[in-house]
Amino acid sequence: MSDVPPELSHLRDSIDNIDAALIHLLAERFKATQAVGHLKARRGMSPADPAREQRQVARLRALAQEAGLDPVFAEKFLSFIIAEVIHHHEQIAEAEERGDAADR
Amino acid sequence: MSDVPPELSHLRDSIDNIDAALIHLLAERFKATQAVGHLKARRGMSPADPAREQRQVARLRALAQEAGLDPVFAEKFLSFIIAEVIHHHEQIAEAEERGDAADR
Repeated sequence: MSDVPPELSHLRDSIDNIDAALIHLLAERFKATQAVGHLKARRGMSPADPAREQRQVARLRALAQEAGLDPVFAEKFLSFIIAEVIHHHEQIAEAEERGDAADR
Repeated sequence: MSDVPPELSHLRDSIDNIDAALIHLLAERFKATQAVGHLKARRGMSPADPAREQRQVARLRALAQEAGLDPVFAEKFLSFIIAEVIHHHEQIAEAEERGDAADR
């Protein structure tokens, strides 16, 4: 790594710190969405909720704009996360149907 | 939204708070990677850096594991972000080649 300019090394340290924060926030977010998944499965609610997603997209685009982040990227990011969440919700719903309540 | 159970509404409030934090961290991360892009373009360094990426993947997978996040998802997440970053870096490098230094 001796050929990395100090300025680049300094920026990479910041990126690494931000990434650690992102990973921990994502872990917390999935804890919340797992709880949502169990609640929805118990009540027989659909894993996906297009109206809620529409409100989330609009809100995150606005927040991105304010923060100087490309709103198109913010929307892609949300879609990326939601695809994973719906996948989790489907797995939870299937487990509930099988009567597999091991991790509830 | 009157048919949303209070428990679900409460979880969604937390998810919305976490999303606002994620958006702001991503905005900050792209500020840092834009600076990296300009630095690399000035020095004629390649936009992509596979050795650095490999270290980032290993580190984020370990952090994810500690935080209770699926390491496979953490790796997918990093790939998603890096694809966007490399796209930015290429745009910056092309602008430098054109002698377009407007936003440096």
